[in-house]
Amino acid sequence: MTDVFDPSHKDAHEQVVFCADAHSGLRAIIAIHNTALGPALGGTRFYPYESEQAALADVLNLSRGMAYKNALAGLDHGGGKAVIIGDPSRDKSEALLRAYGRFIESLGGRYITACDVGTYSEDMDVVARESRHVTGRTLAQGGAGDSSILTAFGVFQGMRASAERVWGTPSLLGRRVGVEGVGKVGHRLVELLREDGAEVVICDVSEQAVERVRQRRPEVEVVADAEALTTADIDVFAPCALGGALDDDTVARLRAKVVCGAANNQLAHPGVEKQLAERGILYAPDYVVNSGGVIQVADEIRGFDMERARAKAARIYDTTLKIFEIAADEGVPPAVAADRLAERRMSEVGRIRAIWLGH
Amino acid sequence: MTDVFDPSHKDAHEQVVFCADAHSGLRAIIAIHNTALGPALGGTRFYPYESEQAALADVLNLSRGMAYKNALAGLDHGGGKAVIIGDPSRDKSEALLRAYGRFIESLGGRYITACDVGTYSEDMDVVARESRHVTGRTLAQGGAGDSSILTAFGVFQGMRASAERVWGTPSLLGRRVGVEGVGKVGHRLVELLREDGAEVVICDVSEQAVERVRQRRPEVEVVADAEALTTADIDVFAPCALGGALDDDTVARLRAKVVCGAANNQLAHPGVEKQLAERGILYAPDYVVNSGGVIQVADEIRGFDMERARAKAARIYDTTLKIFEIAADEGVPPAVAADRLAERRMSEVGRIRAIWLGH
Repeated sequence: MTDVFDPSHKDAHEQVVFCADAHSGLRAIIAIHNTALGPALGGTRFYPYESEQAALADVLNLSRGMAYKNALAGLDHGGGKAVIIGDPSRDKSEALLRAYGRFIESLGGRYITACDVGTYSEDMDVVARESRHVTGRTLAQGGAGDSSILTAFGVFQGMRASAERVWGTPSLLGRRVGVEGVGKVGHRLVELLREDGAEVVICDVSEQAVERVRQRRPEVEVVADAEALTTADIDVFAPCALGGALDDDTVARLRAKVVCGAANNQLAHPGVEKQLAERGILYAPDYVVNSGGVIQVADEIRGFDMERARAKAARIYDTTLKIFEIAADEGVPPAVAADRLAERRMSEVGRIRAIWLGH
Repeated sequence: MTDVFDPSHKDAHEQVVFCADAHSGLRAIIAIHNTALGPALGGTRFYPYESEQAALADVLNLSRGMAYKNALAGLDHGGGKAVIIGDPSRDKSEALLRAYGRFIESLGGRYITACDVGTYSEDMDVVARESRHVTGRTLAQGGAGDSSILTAFGVFQGMRASAERVWGTPSLLGRRVGVEGVGKVGHRLVELLREDGAEVVICDVSEQAVERVRQRRPEVEVVADAEALTTADIDVFAPCALGGALDDDTVARLRAKVVCGAANNQLAHPGVEKQLAERGILYAPDYVVNSGGVIQVADEIRGFDMERARAKAARIYDTTLKIFEIAADEGVPPAVAADRLAERRMSEVGRIRAIWLGH
C-alpha cells in the first residue's frame, strides 16, 4: 500500500491533490514534490492504471524525479507531475480535459502542467482553455510545441561533455555511437550526431522508425536489437527507448566508455551506477541530460522563444561536466553527485525566499 | 483500505488534498466533497489518528456530512473538512498552524476552514495570519467566536418544529426534555428550554458539567447516565454528547415522542431511522438541527453580525418542518427526507452556475 505521507517525515511530498469529476469521468492525481525553487512543473500522464494505488505510486515517483530534473536544469521550478487514470484512446474528451484544467487552475499556479505519455500539445491547448498554468501547447497557440527538439539537443550536449571528460575533446567526430530507440527523440539525436561527424549504430523495435532514419541517413548502421547494440564495438551508448536499459547483464557486456541517452530511469535498480563506475564507464545521469524538453516548455511560461530556450538547454553541457567533477572530488558515481547537486540547489536557493521583500 | 476515488464514480469527492511540511511536522488532509453551492466550508480536526488511512476515511466521511449540512442550512457553501494528523497537546505549534494556513490559502478559497475537535478560535486566528479563508476566529479578531451559541439555538428551533408537528404547538412549556450531555452546547440548550418553560432532565459523564448547570438552574433534575435518561418518562430526548446515541437498544426502550439533539451522527447504524419511525418517534435529523454553528461561522465570511446569523439559524425551524412534511408525503423517515432535500438543492441550485454572466 502506498501512503502519501512518508512516515519518516523526510521525503514527504508537499502536496498531493486528488481530483474527480463524475460527469466527465475525470479521476486525476496531481503531486507537488516541493516548491522550493518555484511553481512545480511537470507533465500529465494519461494511462489506464490498474488501481488508484498504482497511479499514486507512479505520480509520487515521477514528481520527485521532476524536482531533481528541474533543479539541475537551472529552472525556477519545483517538481510536479500529474496522472489521469483512464485509457486515453477511449476516455479522453473535451469535457474531461477542461474539468482537469479547472482543477489545475484551482491550485493558483503552484502546479504547471505539460505533455507526458498519453497527452499531446493539442490536449494542452484544450486544458489551457480553463487554466493559465499550462505549457507544451501547440506552436499555433503560442506554445513551445514538440519538446523532443530540445530534449535531443540537450542529450547531445551531455554527450559532448562526456566526450570532453573521457577523451579531452567535446567533438564526437569519428566516435561510434549506439542509439537504442530512434523515435521522437532518438531520430533527432542521430541527426545531431551525424552533423558532428559521429558514426551511428541504431536499433528500434519499430521497423518504421528505423526506415525513417535510413531514408534520411542511409550510412547509419542498423543492428537487430538492444543486446546486439550493447555488445557492439561502440564508444558511446545512448539509451533513448524505455526505462531500465542499464541492468546487471547490460553493464557487464557493455563495451562503450560512455553512457548518455534520453530515456528516463535508465538504471534498472539502485547499485547499477556503482557497477558502471567500477567498469570504468562514464554515466551521464539521465535526468540531467534529458532535461532539454522541460527547459523548452518552461520557456513558454514567459512567451516562447526557441533561441532563448536553446541557449538554456546548451548549458546542459556545463552542468554535466560539473557533475563529473563533483563525482571525482567526492568519490561517488555521477548519479549520486547529480542528486547531491540538485538537493543543494533546492536547499540553498529555496532558503533565500525567507528574505522579506515588502510585498 | 480507503481509496479516495469511489470506484462507482457516483460519490467521488471533488478534491482531496494531502499537505505536508517536514520542518513543522504538518501532515494534513483537506477534503472537498463538492462545490456545487459555493466554496467548501467545514472545520479542521486535529487528532492523533493511528494511520493515514484512518485519517483519510474520517475526513472523507466528515466532508460528505458537511455538504449535506451546509446545503440544508441554506448556505452558499459546499462541503469540506480537514484533518491534521497529530496530538494537538503535543504537536500544535505556530509554525505548524501557519504552514497549514498557507496550504489553505493555496486553494484560493475553494475551502474555508473553521474549528473542530482539537482546534479553537485562537488557533484559527493563527491560521488566518497565512490565509483569508478562515472562519471561527475570536471575537477580538472580528470572528464569530464560540459557535456553540447558535448551535444550541438551532437545536432549540428544531425541537420547536418537532413539537409543532407532534403536539400542534411549538411551545415546550410543560414538556419534559432529557438532555444527554451538558457541555459546550448542551448547557446552553438547557437555558433555552427553561426560558421556554420546559422541565429538564440531564446527565453527563462530567460531574463538573452537571454542577455548572445545577448552580444556574437548581430545579433541573439529574439522572445517573444515558440509560437512565432514555428510560425516564420524557417527552423529548436531546442527544448532545458523542455520536451513536441511537442504537437498537436505546430506540427499543425510549419513551420520548421526539428525538432532537446537537450530537453528530446520532444514528448508530443505517436502519435506526426506520426503527424510530416504526415506534412512532419523530426524529429531527441531527445535521439539520445542529447546523446553527456552521451558520454562525459562515456569517463571519462577510463580516460577522450576530443578529443576522441568529435570524438565519432561526430558519432551522422551517427547514425541520419541511423535512417532516416531505417525509410524510414521500413515505420515508425524516433522515431520508433530509438527504433527498439536500441532494435536490445541490443538484438544482448548483446547476444555475452554468448560466454565463459575462465576467
